[in-house]
Amino acid sequence: MIPQDALSELQAMLGERLSTGKSDLSLHGRSETFHPEMPPDAVAYPVTTAEVAAIVQTCARHGLPVIGWGTGTALEGHASAPRGGVTVDFRHMDAVLEIVPDDMLVRVQPGCTREALNTELRATGLMFPVDPGANASLGGMAATRASGTTAVRYGTMRDQVRGLEVVLADGRVIHTGSRARKSSAGYDLTALFVGSEGTLGLITELTLKLWGQPEATAAAVCGFATTEGAIDAVILAMQMGLTPARIEYVDVATTRILNAADGADLPETPHLLLEFHGSDAAVATEAEHFGQIAADHGGSAYRWATKPEDRSKLWSMRHRAYHTILATRPGATAVVTDVCVPISKLGQAIARAAADIDVSSLDGPILGHVGDGNYHAILLVDRNAPTEIAEAKRLSDAMVAHALDLGGTATGEHGVGLGKLHLMEAEHGAAWDVMGAIKRSLDPDGTMNPGKLVRQN
Amino acid sequence: MIPQDALSELQAMLGERLSTGKSDLSLHGRSETFHPEMPPDAVAYPVTTAEVAAIVQTCARHGLPVIGWGTGTALEGHASAPRGGVTVDFRHMDAVLEIVPDDMLVRVQPGCTREALNTELRATGLMFPVDPGANASLGGMAATRASGTTAVRYGTMRDQVRGLEVVLADGRVIHTGSRARKSSAGYDLTALFVGSEGTLGLITELTLKLWGQPEATAAAVCGFATTEGAIDAVILAMQMGLTPARIEYVDVATTRILNAADGADLPETPHLLLEFHGSDAAVATEAEHFGQIAADHGGSAYRWATKPEDRSKLWSMRHRAYHTILATRPGATAVVTDVCVPISKLGQAIARAAADIDVSSLDGPILGHVGDGNYHAILLVDRNAPTEIAEAKRLSDAMVAHALDLGGTATGEHGVGLGKLHLMEAEHGAAWDVMGAIKRSLDPDGTMNPGKLVRQN
Repeated sequence: MIPQDALSELQAMLGERLSTGKSDLSLHGRSETFHPEMPPDAVAYPVTTAEVAAIVQTCARHGLPVIGWGTGTALEGHASAPRGGVTVDFRHMDAVLEIVPDDMLVRVQPGCTREALNTELRATGLMFPVDPGANASLGGMAATRASGTTAVRYGTMRDQVRGLEVVLADGRVIHTGSRARKSSAGYDLTALFVGSEGTLGLITELTLKLWGQPEATAAAVCGFATTEGAIDAVILAMQMGLTPARIEYVDVATTRILNAADGADLPETPHLLLEFHGSDAAVATEAEHFGQIAADHGGSAYRWATKPEDRSKLWSMRHRAYHTILATRPGATAVVTDVCVPISKLGQAIARAAADIDVSSLDGPILGHVGDGNYHAILLVDRNAPTEIAEAKRLSDAMVAHALDLGGTATGEHGVGLGKLHLMEAEHGAAWDVMGAIKRSLDPDGTMNPGKLVRQN
Repeated sequence: MIPQDALSELQAMLGERLSTGKSDLSLHGRSETFHPEMPPDAVAYPVTTAEVAAIVQTCARHGLPVIGWGTGTALEGHASAPRGGVTVDFRHMDAVLEIVPDDMLVRVQPGCTREALNTELRATGLMFPVDPGANASLGGMAATRASGTTAVRYGTMRDQVRGLEVVLADGRVIHTGSRARKSSAGYDLTALFVGSEGTLGLITELTLKLWGQPEATAAAVCGFATTEGAIDAVILAMQMGLTPARIEYVDVATTRILNAADGADLPETPHLLLEFHGSDAAVATEAEHFGQIAADHGGSAYRWATKPEDRSKLWSMRHRAYHTILATRPGATAVVTDVCVPISKLGQAIARAAADIDVSSLDGPILGHVGDGNYHAILLVDRNAPTEIAEAKRLSDAMVAHALDLGGTATGEHGVGLGKLHLMEAEHGAAWDVMGAIKRSLDPDGTMNPGKLVRQN
């Protein structure tokens, strides 16, 4: 429980922008998927960096946990409050502060969502490409090192953040990075805070790299006799220098579900869905070239299109996949696994996962950002059935163990939060202790998002 | 001085691979350019990670400084030994350990040079693109976050390192990153060690990203009426999605020097030199497109070519520029400045630097990696003339102060070392204290490359 004097201090500072209402606390204790609710003691809605710093200082003085909150779309319980404390909700700090077209940069507040940013950019010819699916906040996306379908061409949040403003655990405000495209001036603090999940500080401003809107976009779809054929086609395409903007894999189970639900008439095989960005000529060249590579690897029924309506037909199966899969078991929740392996091992990883799911009591169609070696099994569970949750966790942990054997990682894009904490020692060994040492050096009292990412005291 | 018992321990371990010969110490105390010689007390030549760990442990026990050494081509005194101690020279740890074409990865030891790696890769169709000019070691390039002419397309070392093996200050060996293309599994330790200049640990192995060798390469050269015109052309080209592999700027002074020395007959204006990589068609399209953009911005005498002999003629001026400039003052040493600014400010930055150099007693032609906003003035000094060294430092510091005002950085690619240490507080403010806290958390006794990068105790 939050001490009354701390609460009074925060109330004096924030007035109605401090909430202790039960439903608000409950909302900020929940996460998507299966994690149990862990509400904070209060929710603060700051409007300036100075207010964030003052909130953090008050919490530091009282030893209270501070948890950042963007849109609440994290999948591993990143923003829940297992030790109570104050959740800092950035919804009012959502401005696009400055667009600099000549430097292809934008400065935003952390609560700005990726869709809001792209709406703002529409007339500039520029875009922000990272697409994790959800309309997440950019602060949250940076904090979890998010990526998604477009990472294969544009990279992850690691590659987009040029600089940050961060409020540290003691309330100091620092600025990392610069507006220059590169720098060798000391430790890369920007990269350290990206992916730190609020455990080292709260991000209060981001300078992000922008990209030109592509002149043309092509979408393509192709069935493959085998998963291995699909992956080999992708490996060859990337070695040959093709630069697709998206390469998504859907397995046979997903194809069947989409046929049944959407009246699609796809061959019951694994499929790849691709998107190409570039000039009209480049897009056509890449789409044709990929078609040839696919044909050499058991690909069939290859189609590609550049007109928006044709493109959206080809891609509708991917866009609807997650919800169509969920709908096959009404009321179910998904436990979404998230390992990432070297692409040469992806066939092995998916084959083992599929075999494990086959003999399990759960259904779990598999989708993947195959160009990155990242796949997700959508494990369908009843969130009120502990045995099902346990079975889903067992399957997920087995996928992680296999991924680590193959030189991969426990999480390609979802992050650690609470859900992957128990896997960090296996993944990092002594390097996890180094993370702990860094955490203690910047947050000696452990008030920043406690219980997440690093070994707990 | 190194205590006799420490020396005996190291000798027992390394035999003839521990050197205390005067000329060897002197060589390892020197750096390119003007920094004074600061030799270590001993030089170790390990052959395995276990030996590196044992050397570091011995040094930790005796409180001796440990300094990493690649090829000695750093420009800011990174590898000198201002407090003596043991320099660890990685020349025997220079193997290419494993090439994984399907994952476009390579595993190397830190002493492997970038040219040796590319020779090894020649038959694979893959390449390692980062080109800082010198044939530096890959460990050193990672430690300084090096880049160079190709960063505009391929990125810097920050973007190429997938994972590291590092020996920490207490001799522990950790592994960072993985073989997967992306990960959200905790703090990005790989990015923290890249650019840490040996102050947090010694890199003993690197896993690096590789790229396909381009099917075709085009070189281009273009004169511009003004520097601003040249930069505006580059800004527009990048906004339009052109992806040149190199975009180099040379100023009027450099053009004059090259005309005189090489018998070139270039108009006495600023020039851009470009290189395009891709398919035959893509390279031709980009080269033609850039020519149109250049013409709209005061460009003239635009020429481009894809045949190797024609390309090397067009680019010979750039390849020879540094040494041709040095030769204009026989016996001179260069103080090479290295600021990087947002590209929209590059014209301002270069104009101010050129004006400062004009009224100075020194000559200083300017070259730049213009696509990155990074330029170098080659300030010619007599290294035995303290007033000239002081004047060069004054000019360099003024360029840095202006770059920081413009949102840039004190060093785009050379790093901090000894030479830029006094500028870090101005660049980073309180973030420099955060770097110091991280340093203390991983190297509490301050034995790893002391005197560099962070505030000194």
